[in-house]
Amino acid sequence: MKELKSFLGGRWVAGGGTPHTLLNPATEEPLARTTAGAADLGAALAFARDVGGPALRALSFAERGALLKSIAGALQSSRDELLELAIANGGNTRSDAKFDVDGAIGTLLEYSEIGNALGSRKFLLDGEGIQLGRSARFHGQHIAVPRHGVAVHVNAFNFPAWGFAEKAAVALLAGVPVLSKPATSSAMVAHRIMEILAEKKILPEGALSLLVGSPGELVSLLGAQDVLAFTGSGDTGARIRSARNVIEFSVRINVEADSLNAAVLGADVEPRSDMYELFLKDVVRDMTQKAGQKCTAIRRILVPKDVIDEVKSDLIELLATVKVGNPADEDVRMGPLATASQLADACEGVTRLGGRLAFGSTERNSEKGFFMSPVLVESPGDAVHEHEVFGPVASLLPYDENPASLVVRGNGGLVSSIYSEDQAFIEQLVMDIAPHHGRVFLGHPKIELSPGPGTVLPQLVHGGPGRAGGGEELGGPRGLAFYMQRVALEGSRPVIQKLIG
Amino acid sequence: MKELKSFLGGRWVAGGGTPHTLLNPATEEPLARTTAGAADLGAALAFARDVGGPALRALSFAERGALLKSIAGALQSSRDELLELAIANGGNTRSDAKFDVDGAIGTLLEYSEIGNALGSRKFLLDGEGIQLGRSARFHGQHIAVPRHGVAVHVNAFNFPAWGFAEKAAVALLAGVPVLSKPATSSAMVAHRIMEILAEKKILPEGALSLLVGSPGELVSLLGAQDVLAFTGSGDTGARIRSARNVIEFSVRINVEADSLNAAVLGADVEPRSDMYELFLKDVVRDMTQKAGQKCTAIRRILVPKDVIDEVKSDLIELLATVKVGNPADEDVRMGPLATASQLADACEGVTRLGGRLAFGSTERNSEKGFFMSPVLVESPGDAVHEHEVFGPVASLLPYDENPASLVVRGNGGLVSSIYSEDQAFIEQLVMDIAPHHGRVFLGHPKIELSPGPGTVLPQLVHGGPGRAGGGEELGGPRGLAFYMQRVALEGSRPVIQKLIG
Repeated sequence: MKELKSFLGGRWVAGGGTPHTLLNPATEEPLARTTAGAADLGAALAFARDVGGPALRALSFAERGALLKSIAGALQSSRDELLELAIANGGNTRSDAKFDVDGAIGTLLEYSEIGNALGSRKFLLDGEGIQLGRSARFHGQHIAVPRHGVAVHVNAFNFPAWGFAEKAAVALLAGVPVLSKPATSSAMVAHRIMEILAEKKILPEGALSLLVGSPGELVSLLGAQDVLAFTGSGDTGARIRSARNVIEFSVRINVEADSLNAAVLGADVEPRSDMYELFLKDVVRDMTQKAGQKCTAIRRILVPKDVIDEVKSDLIELLATVKVGNPADEDVRMGPLATASQLADACEGVTRLGGRLAFGSTERNSEKGFFMSPVLVESPGDAVHEHEVFGPVASLLPYDENPASLVVRGNGGLVSSIYSEDQAFIEQLVMDIAPHHGRVFLGHPKIELSPGPGTVLPQLVHGGPGRAGGGEELGGPRGLAFYMQRVALEGSRPVIQKLIG
Repeated sequence: MKELKSFLGGRWVAGGGTPHTLLNPATEEPLARTTAGAADLGAALAFARDVGGPALRALSFAERGALLKSIAGALQSSRDELLELAIANGGNTRSDAKFDVDGAIGTLLEYSEIGNALGSRKFLLDGEGIQLGRSARFHGQHIAVPRHGVAVHVNAFNFPAWGFAEKAAVALLAGVPVLSKPATSSAMVAHRIMEILAEKKILPEGALSLLVGSPGELVSLLGAQDVLAFTGSGDTGARIRSARNVIEFSVRINVEADSLNAAVLGADVEPRSDMYELFLKDVVRDMTQKAGQKCTAIRRILVPKDVIDEVKSDLIELLATVKVGNPADEDVRMGPLATASQLADACEGVTRLGGRLAFGSTERNSEKGFFMSPVLVESPGDAVHEHEVFGPVASLLPYDENPASLVVRGNGGLVSSIYSEDQAFIEQLVMDIAPHHGRVFLGHPKIELSPGPGTVLPQLVHGGPGRAGGGEELGGPRGLAFYMQRVALEGSRPVIQKLIG
């Protein structure tokens, strides 16, 4: 059985932590094990800060961008192998696995291009120079410089490739070394990526580390120049943010947590119209892709009350065609959940939602594997606005006049979507719900190959206020700000102009 | 004796809290008292959110900017009265009081102009539109919309006018109602400002509230759409950030806390040169203005070791000319500290710094009033990099080759300053210390009326990483981001273009 080590301080190290066995969630077959996690994390962080940081800061944005292109190239050459690992260790269908791995490659390439566009600079200019006094000599200029710490990335189990890449691409481009910690249960993909990159020596020493297994005291070792980006449950996010040193040293934290993403069907949309069909397609994709284990998946389906029966029967018909099973079989459209505990949480979550099951059930109908069927809930209780069920589960909710008041009961989300061609309705709803979201998706049937609301694009910000964690990632060059310090230079204009070059 | 009430829910209310008497810190004469603080804060916040928020959001940036201009005008008409209150209640010299009140007016006018420039929009466009697919139809656009909550501002005692205005100007311009809580001991200026604004009905109902006295459970009442900006001690900042609801609902918090601002004299600077004299002048101003009670004041004076004796004797000579006393007397250049407890903390802090007193003492030499002399410490212990003494106190430190390694021991600061004409030295030092600061001030004798590093300008960001709280305020339009939600609109290009107007 493969033994997964951590890559820390520039070498592979086994830990002395509690052993953990990684499974194939479709068959429960053991695939790998790790005892990592109890390594000398202080030394690993210091190595990243002291060796990786200066090496990255010595490079221009274009040079850092070229590194990202090399990473993307390395993943591309090993794409088939990574897809197989994602199918085996992640319960992914081949399509799910491509969504993860190709998303990783695309994000790396997008940030490589941003680096290229930023060119030979090593820090960013932030806005124009500002005349501060009556004479032009007294001058101000904001710049953004790489922080002198390490970027710790704590990733969720659902996107081992994309989660690694979307965070690492931005930090490395900003000039900050990365210590990435994948979720243990699905760590094989991220671990293999690290192996490939270490073997090819694509990055400067210390620029990238990987911690497999328990994070131990990792959070408590972070200081004022470090940053931590976390994707996962709100509870863990809260624990990280409560850490004494995080509060005392103002360690910068970005959290992407729970989100009760809504999809709203406008009252103007006729059943059977292209917009209606798009809406159904996006809902079903979000419920079943990655077995619903996407932080951006539609959880609340809001439809005008007079069409709710029609929508329900159409969704039931579509969900019935989704074949659930071992994703190694090519005709399977939805695999298992990632772990036994994810399955237990999802089933328990369905019970918490209340209401009735219009489709699917939480009964176990296979001896092995963490399978559940897609579940469509109708008439759920208030928990539908409070509890995210992280699986192939969504709830159908009727609205009367004002869907906004229901949408915002989610108390902050990553994305909600609107399917309508009534411009006035769209504008009002966008203004009402925008403050509560990081992204609003406006479905339109004329957009070819629309990825739907569930796909995170590197060009747009990803994150959301409130329950969603209050974070923000990606958004093209916007994502760099998290890893950099904005500082105002104030003084004599010729001195500052020479300084910024 | 004047009774200070709170202005909450659109009316003046007395509280049932513990009574507190406000003093003249030069004479200890009682000036006012307040029992406010135990009002129904939940209702006050709801009024701001439900009445003030929609009223502000209905206005354009230009209209909100016009409100700021009216506030500035109202303060200007009452300037003399406000200066007198600052002198009496704040221990300010007339010059200190002008620094506070004129700073407030200037900041309001600066943000009024920003509003004017932003024009008839009610929300901001954030960057250009982005083509997301192969066809131009699939489109993205980031916008920033006002949050639907209330902005709670918890201000420090040292700048009752400026502290109120620099925070309120930005929030109101963003379209977010404000509940401002001045420090109780010096609340008379902020209270009078609120009286003037309420009397003239300058703002829409609910747009501005004032809480005098203890904040009670205020922090625990904030939710996902609210924000809190705090200026004060690191300990209180940590308490706010640890609050359960703040963590659970990702309440946005901005903290400006402790800062061990350094001033570095370059080895190229000849004693008696213009640059040298500017350096001395800035150090002495920062030590004595507002009796050193400025978060941006120079605390660590770094000079090349071969000139330290010369610098020390020059500083001693200048400090000896500073007359300390009741600021109501016109020839007094430095007033008392704000309160008895500030005085006790400052004296205790001097002891903590260790080393020797090159100038001044912590002995009490007046029967009444919270006076202390300016204190110049030499050969301090390591505490100089860890403990901010919030009074007229600075420490002299020699450096050998690399001042950066000393500067960054402050572990994050608001501003540090460099006095040198050696461009290579400046550039290296800026790059080394920039990640640890919100602002770097480059002293230059040819800048007329240079305000020195201790003055916060509305055009430049104010805040700093680590010990300084990890926050950021002002910076012209940059400051608006804290009060707004950035959201990506994703969909059909014509729909989005119509939506953004």
